[in-house]
Amino acid sequence: MAVFENPKIIEVLRKYRRIWAIGHAESVLGWDMEVNMPKMGIQERSVAQGELSVLSQEFTLAPEFVNLVEDASSEELNEYERGVVRVLQRDIKISKAFPPDFVREMSETTSKATMAWQEAKKKDDFSLFEEHLEKIMVLARRAADYLGYEDQPYDALLDLFEEGLTTKDVENMFSKLEKPLADIFEKIMEDGKFPREHPLEKEKYEKESMEKVNIAVLKAFGYPLGERSRIDVSAHPFTTEFGVNDVRITTRYEGYDFKMSLLSTVHEFGHALYELQQNPEFMMSPIIGGVSLGIHESQSRFWENIVGRSMAFARFIEPILKENLPFMEKYNVDDIYKYVNTVRADLIRTEANEVTYNLHIILRFKLEKLMVNGEIKAKDLPEMWNEEIEKLLGVKPKSYADGILQDIHWSHGTIGYFPTYSIGTIFAAQIGSYIKRDVSNFYGLVERGEFQPIREYLREKVHRYGKIYPPKVLVKKSFGEEIKPEYFIEYLKNKYL
Amino acid sequence: MAVFENPKIIEVLRKYRRIWAIGHAESVLGWDMEVNMPKMGIQERSVAQGELSVLSQEFTLAPEFVNLVEDASSEELNEYERGVVRVLQRDIKISKAFPPDFVREMSETTSKATMAWQEAKKKDDFSLFEEHLEKIMVLARRAADYLGYEDQPYDALLDLFEEGLTTKDVENMFSKLEKPLADIFEKIMEDGKFPREHPLEKEKYEKESMEKVNIAVLKAFGYPLGERSRIDVSAHPFTTEFGVNDVRITTRYEGYDFKMSLLSTVHEFGHALYELQQNPEFMMSPIIGGVSLGIHESQSRFWENIVGRSMAFARFIEPILKENLPFMEKYNVDDIYKYVNTVRADLIRTEANEVTYNLHIILRFKLEKLMVNGEIKAKDLPEMWNEEIEKLLGVKPKSYADGILQDIHWSHGTIGYFPTYSIGTIFAAQIGSYIKRDVSNFYGLVERGEFQPIREYLREKVHRYGKIYPPKVLVKKSFGEEIKPEYFIEYLKNKYL
Repeated sequence: MAVFENPKIIEVLRKYRRIWAIGHAESVLGWDMEVNMPKMGIQERSVAQGELSVLSQEFTLAPEFVNLVEDASSEELNEYERGVVRVLQRDIKISKAFPPDFVREMSETTSKATMAWQEAKKKDDFSLFEEHLEKIMVLARRAADYLGYEDQPYDALLDLFEEGLTTKDVENMFSKLEKPLADIFEKIMEDGKFPREHPLEKEKYEKESMEKVNIAVLKAFGYPLGERSRIDVSAHPFTTEFGVNDVRITTRYEGYDFKMSLLSTVHEFGHALYELQQNPEFMMSPIIGGVSLGIHESQSRFWENIVGRSMAFARFIEPILKENLPFMEKYNVDDIYKYVNTVRADLIRTEANEVTYNLHIILRFKLEKLMVNGEIKAKDLPEMWNEEIEKLLGVKPKSYADGILQDIHWSHGTIGYFPTYSIGTIFAAQIGSYIKRDVSNFYGLVERGEFQPIREYLREKVHRYGKIYPPKVLVKKSFGEEIKPEYFIEYLKNKYL
Repeated sequence: MAVFENPKIIEVLRKYRRIWAIGHAESVLGWDMEVNMPKMGIQERSVAQGELSVLSQEFTLAPEFVNLVEDASSEELNEYERGVVRVLQRDIKISKAFPPDFVREMSETTSKATMAWQEAKKKDDFSLFEEHLEKIMVLARRAADYLGYEDQPYDALLDLFEEGLTTKDVENMFSKLEKPLADIFEKIMEDGKFPREHPLEKEKYEKESMEKVNIAVLKAFGYPLGERSRIDVSAHPFTTEFGVNDVRITTRYEGYDFKMSLLSTVHEFGHALYELQQNPEFMMSPIIGGVSLGIHESQSRFWENIVGRSMAFARFIEPILKENLPFMEKYNVDDIYKYVNTVRADLIRTEANEVTYNLHIILRFKLEKLMVNGEIKAKDLPEMWNEEIEKLLGVKPKSYADGILQDIHWSHGTIGYFPTYSIGTIFAAQIGSYIKRDVSNFYGLVERGEFQPIREYLREKVHRYGKIYPPKVLVKKSFGEEIKPEYFIEYLKNKYL
């Protein structure tokens, strides 16, 4: 039995094909821009991307297409077909919400803001970014108003990145996290079992050797290199998919502190696996692919944290490291484990450990709510940031680059995005708890490099559903309960205390 | 003064922007497919490419766009603007000529034919390809009928690849080539000054070393690597441009007989330079880019043959080769020169030398005319091929793979394309004659690696015009006469006799 049978849905999918093709092209253009493009290609590439994105919006909002989707929605449909309608109605709603002038203003503002942010960060001068951020805050609020919301404006922005997520959800989640995280962090610091620094951070490596490590790990994981996937290099590692049979990750090579390269690769593999294990019958339809940013991040964090930062993984990877990195002969499994699990008060979110990571997001969330509600001005942000981060971590940034200016996201206009990182981190631990219950000897499998049953579990529970259900429904359906921060706290206590 | 001023032309260009963007995306997708794509990505990639090509055709033929171009054509226009109208009217005419059913049939037939050709070549069994080729011959004739022609059907196909080229032109060109080429070839064979083989053909190299050679040569040529261009690897070297500031070449590394890698790189550089030296004011307009396949090939052949196979270039490259390829210490400049200029009766076109190369094209041309006129059947072709090539070169293929099945082109349905290779080869020698007259001490510049005046000459005479004029007009305007085979014969006589 085919997954799509209703004639109206078949017709919708036929018409959707060109929207899919433009999306495919946009992804290839974006990937190429990060990985290959000669510097000066940016001008023409940007124009091409802008044109394609307008085209895609036009086709999504074409009355004929919109009516067809509406027509199909009143048919008797199977769950796959209902998924198609839900995803397209959401795409149409979002595409329709923003007037072209607003889209143009947003695009121009964020282009300028991104350049200003780079300059401001380099010169460590917040004033260069201030007026741009102010504009973005105003635009984010307008975006919320265009999208509409029941309770508060920030809800609309959250929903844009994580379907169905509300401010209340996030507040509820963070209320259960903030105090326990602070307590756990304090105890680890007192306790000293997990070091703040490790000598491996200073060891230098040859890029070619580290490439061999990453490829050996990916092959053990079952990443279909050359057949259905690639690994390349970019400044900021990312995953992109051009279809179920062409999924690409990137990683980075600093030449020292190899865990940054290794854990980036492991993290991106988690994203990639989600796309590689989609149901091939959904190919080129609206329901193929990861359902939301939060669920996607749960997959990458599962591989990075639950697998990659475990003692079992340290045992698994020791021979691979020793074979390729000469300095490793001085270190043992315990070193590897401690090295990937140092705990300190990192001022930079992307370098934060599992314990403090969410404290960074809590801060972002607080500030973003105030921004969208118009309760603060851009000029107030640096001071608020420094005060809050000191409360959370006990340390104060010495520069803007270490504080308010550290991340690019706000300059891109993505307000409401950060909480999806927390959802991913938390839900990864929750999946970790289920998999230990459901798959016998989980850590034994990791240690022996037998990843097939783990891949299969994730496929069965998460990947194969694509976008059929909204994230909350998917979680409930597969695991019988909703996302709960308690699992994450439990995981941290077991590991660190 | 801007090159585009007429308000209707400005409007045409505004509307053309999305057609350009789709073309840009198609190019990136095509390049990625050859250079990066994981094997199984082909299915989704093909669908995306098909959708984009249909979209591009739809926008080109949209009544609003067609009318706008017609309107603009009756305005008083400058030469750039007239170029825009000419190129778009030609695009519209060609897009309009083929009914959708025909395009689909052609696409399906050539897809199957390409697979059948691969199989047939591998098994050396022409019968596996025969019926596909028969179909393609019939479709080529139908294509000619759709396009229309004044004198004979083959004219329509030639014009598709080389605007304004007629069967008579090609017959005239080849009538002046066939006998002299055969005579020159015979004399070289008797004479023995240019060897049939050279020991350097057997020398093996490391890919990394040869990469260094290619990059050193490209840098000396002035190829803006990383800024506006790249070099990558693919099975069949090619050049593609995504715009004036993103031009990419590929090369190949067999691991032996390094001239194949070197001359491929030099050849593709010639194509790339044509695109890199376009007038930036034409950016994203219909008149940017090489004007025709023949003129494009003249640029690549100029760098490959006139520069790359010269004694001056052998002197220029000797130190680069000696620095990177250890076996080169046994060889001198004269060896390099003889090695890149061996002359023998090669059965394979792509391996043919400067002298016999056009004899291969003469054979293709004879057969293609008969095919399009319906005067032969596919089943007659292998025997005709073998007879004719023996007449031309004095050797007979031992297999289909060495004869009728050697090239992929016919399986792609590209009938009428081969003559552009001859135009390129011939016109390259003609440009060589002009440049020696116009640029003082041309070969001295090559020997010293001073390529800037050579780039500048080509920019001034050919590149900067983009597609403003049809190829014949461009040649006449820049050099005061038409393309003449006599220059090529003269060049060969001077070099080889």
